[in-house]
Amino acid sequence: MALTFQIIGYKKSGKTLITTELVRLLTDRHLHVSVLKHDAHASTMDTPGTDTAQFSHAGAQEVILQSANGIFCHQTTVQPVPVSRLIALLPTSTDVILLEGFKHAPYPKIALLRSDDHAIDFQQFTNIQVFASLTCHPDATLVGKTAICNWFVQTYFKGAATTND
Amino acid sequence: MALTFQIIGYKKSGKTLITTELVRLLTDRHLHVSVLKHDAHASTMDTPGTDTAQFSHAGAQEVILQSANGIFCHQTTVQPVPVSRLIALLPTSTDVILLEGFKHAPYPKIALLRSDDHAIDFQQFTNIQVFASLTCHPDATLVGKTAICNWFVQTYFKGAATTND
Repeated sequence: MALTFQIIGYKKSGKTLITTELVRLLTDRHLHVSVLKHDAHASTMDTPGTDTAQFSHAGAQEVILQSANGIFCHQTTVQPVPVSRLIALLPTSTDVILLEGFKHAPYPKIALLRSDDHAIDFQQFTNIQVFASLTCHPDATLVGKTAICNWFVQTYFKGAATTND
Repeated sequence: MALTFQIIGYKKSGKTLITTELVRLLTDRHLHVSVLKHDAHASTMDTPGTDTAQFSHAGAQEVILQSANGIFCHQTTVQPVPVSRLIALLPTSTDVILLEGFKHAPYPKIALLRSDDHAIDFQQFTNIQVFASLTCHPDATLVGKTAICNWFVQTYFKGAATTND
């Protein structure tokens, strides 16, 4: 059963930085890591003008690309899909599932604070394990990339991380 | 049961043009169309430097992005996956599955000829329904985008297509 853990925070709070660093640390320990990222905007993984973008634009509801870089899929789903259905797409061999965003999902989570955020701004979200911030913050228990990543690895993998701010 | 049909041909034979046009024609008829594209090179659907590319680069074996444009996934699979496993990823509501490439797959297919290709170059591939070319060619039964798309729609959907070269 994969450990499923979330990194939440408002825009520019450092979610992607922390998620990337955790992927790197866990992968170095030979763990199979998957990331789910939520973006409420019209962000895309596809580059306009490429063949695959062209197929979606012409109306294909699913486009799958098999290349030497692996397999890419685009499903032009209009409605947001529940996180549990996205998780079901992952292989059973996954050790760690990191969710960037999806604030309302029920999994244990780190809340990342920007300098003008407060812990109270997160009161509607469940299962926050710790408040953290990339820079000094009165409501943050963990400050800086190293402290955040060390906490995660020590809490869930009983080891020390090797990351530096 | 979805109609599964391939568009094969060597580089620059017009596979993407024909696939895109078929997607458009079939989608206009309110059919649920999916496309599978095979590229033997290190092509990607992801843009270097984006958050999702960063996660893959850091070692994540699956990255899933849920955005307002739909769902994107990247599986950093090293080994090519059999086409049948890719097809199994598609929803059962799919009406037409178009495969661009995958020359060795067993589904019925159009072979697209470049001016210096010959029908004999395709003898190791099975289930070729028709030879076609975007430009005049002695081995091609169908010449031009309109003829190719009309043939497909008439053969499989008993209707006339409305495309122009």
